[in-house]
Amino acid sequence: MVRGLSAQLTVLKLGGSVITDKEKPLTPNLAAIERLAKEISRANVSPLVLVHGGGSFGHPVAEQYGLSEGYKDSSQIMGFSITHQVMTKLNKLIVGSLINHNIPAVEVQPSSCVVTKAGRIQSMEDRPLRKMFEMGFVPVLYGDVVFDSENGFAILSGDQLVSSLAMNLDARRIVVGVDVNGLYTGDPKTDSLARLIRHITLEELKNLEPLIEGSKVTDVTGGMLGKMFELKPAVEHGIQTIIVNAAEPNRVYKALKGEKVVGTVIER
Amino acid sequence: MVRGLSAQLTVLKLGGSVITDKEKPLTPNLAAIERLAKEISRANVSPLVLVHGGGSFGHPVAEQYGLSEGYKDSSQIMGFSITHQVMTKLNKLIVGSLINHNIPAVEVQPSSCVVTKAGRIQSMEDRPLRKMFEMGFVPVLYGDVVFDSENGFAILSGDQLVSSLAMNLDARRIVVGVDVNGLYTGDPKTDSLARLIRHITLEELKNLEPLIEGSKVTDVTGGMLGKMFELKPAVEHGIQTIIVNAAEPNRVYKALKGEKVVGTVIER
Repeated sequence: MVRGLSAQLTVLKLGGSVITDKEKPLTPNLAAIERLAKEISRANVSPLVLVHGGGSFGHPVAEQYGLSEGYKDSSQIMGFSITHQVMTKLNKLIVGSLINHNIPAVEVQPSSCVVTKAGRIQSMEDRPLRKMFEMGFVPVLYGDVVFDSENGFAILSGDQLVSSLAMNLDARRIVVGVDVNGLYTGDPKTDSLARLIRHITLEELKNLEPLIEGSKVTDVTGGMLGKMFELKPAVEHGIQTIIVNAAEPNRVYKALKGEKVVGTVIER
Repeated sequence: MVRGLSAQLTVLKLGGSVITDKEKPLTPNLAAIERLAKEISRANVSPLVLVHGGGSFGHPVAEQYGLSEGYKDSSQIMGFSITHQVMTKLNKLIVGSLINHNIPAVEVQPSSCVVTKAGRIQSMEDRPLRKMFEMGFVPVLYGDVVFDSENGFAILSGDQLVSSLAMNLDARRIVVGVDVNGLYTGDPKTDSLARLIRHITLEELKNLEPLIEGSKVTDVTGGMLGKMFELKPAVEHGIQTIIVNAAEPNRVYKALKGEKVVGTVIER
């Protein structure tokens, strides 16, 4: 039964740059959160696992305390606590909005069930998570500060979570919502010649990587190239992956429904 | 190193009836939360694990949807989501208050790392938790709705968590903060002859149980007798346990410090 359900599983990532105001620390984009909750409710895709990024919640605090380098000294301890606390604030807004739209969303706290090793997921207790989507809940995870067996702690990006979950749960599809239309051959915000890549294979991606590097999505966990680095193993695993602009209405909805939509499809 | 630290571990339970206004749904007792955060900060006991109850947050919602009976029909699904969501609201207030008092508190979500079987803890991923207190953090858990391998879901009381954690982590002491002075030989609120039991052994407890039954602490997870049922295995395990009135200033502080305090000490 688990396998059967997993084979239908969609993992949706909502980028921190969409659900928060990137320019203002600790400022959610409530209109975007509300609209996306409606789109997810309307799409009514099941089972579904949602992962969101930190945007202006997690990143500035994590940066302030140098958490990405792991544990260096005790001054970071309070920084870890505060970073997790602000991430749960953002998570509560998203879960709350989903519940308001009648989606049985349940937070899943990565730092309580994941241990990393040198920044990479080493183990994850996923039994509660599996139970959740088997029963019709929508688990909502997030980029988080987590404990690391080598470095004390680490920042676990939403993108690493997405890829790891999708592979471990044998998901069918990954939908990644960002604040640009998809993968470009350059930075669409500064380069007028940059064009959107509508479909790409892993082989083609290898050749394009030097170009994609120019496409900046602000995110301390690594921009578009960092995203691709995380998503590639899942694509390699056979999971169809689509990147869409979640800041544009209906793109996430259409991607969830499997309808034709502006974006970048990545396939093996 | 883990063993050495665990041998010093104190597990503190803060009853839902102290940190919330029992009479008003979803109403925290902010003054009590603030005072208790100060007491915990002043006591400066390390390592420390904190567990809190649901009070007027979790209980009314869980009751409304009949969650304590496990999964019966799909109408409970939203109830589970909402119950967890309100519990995290309460948890955020407590963690936030601890952080304000310079305690590196970190939420640990029971429903993401515990699976129960017929309401009893079957497995718990506790590696992140162990890492936390090894590094000097104060993990903050709470009574929660969790997934259950037999009944779909279950209510996991803070008291069951306290006892299970204390045993698994080989804690030294358990401090249980409630809204009465300790164990009485009757209900102190209605029976003027009820007297406080200052010290009791498990053997003596057996004989007194019919009397204690009269002592009501409002809590859908089982009053004082339910509490004793959960705590007994930990006491049997050799963990000194003290019940104090957390609604009275300084009782939790003194209990944490191991100072003489009004309350009930339970020993093997």
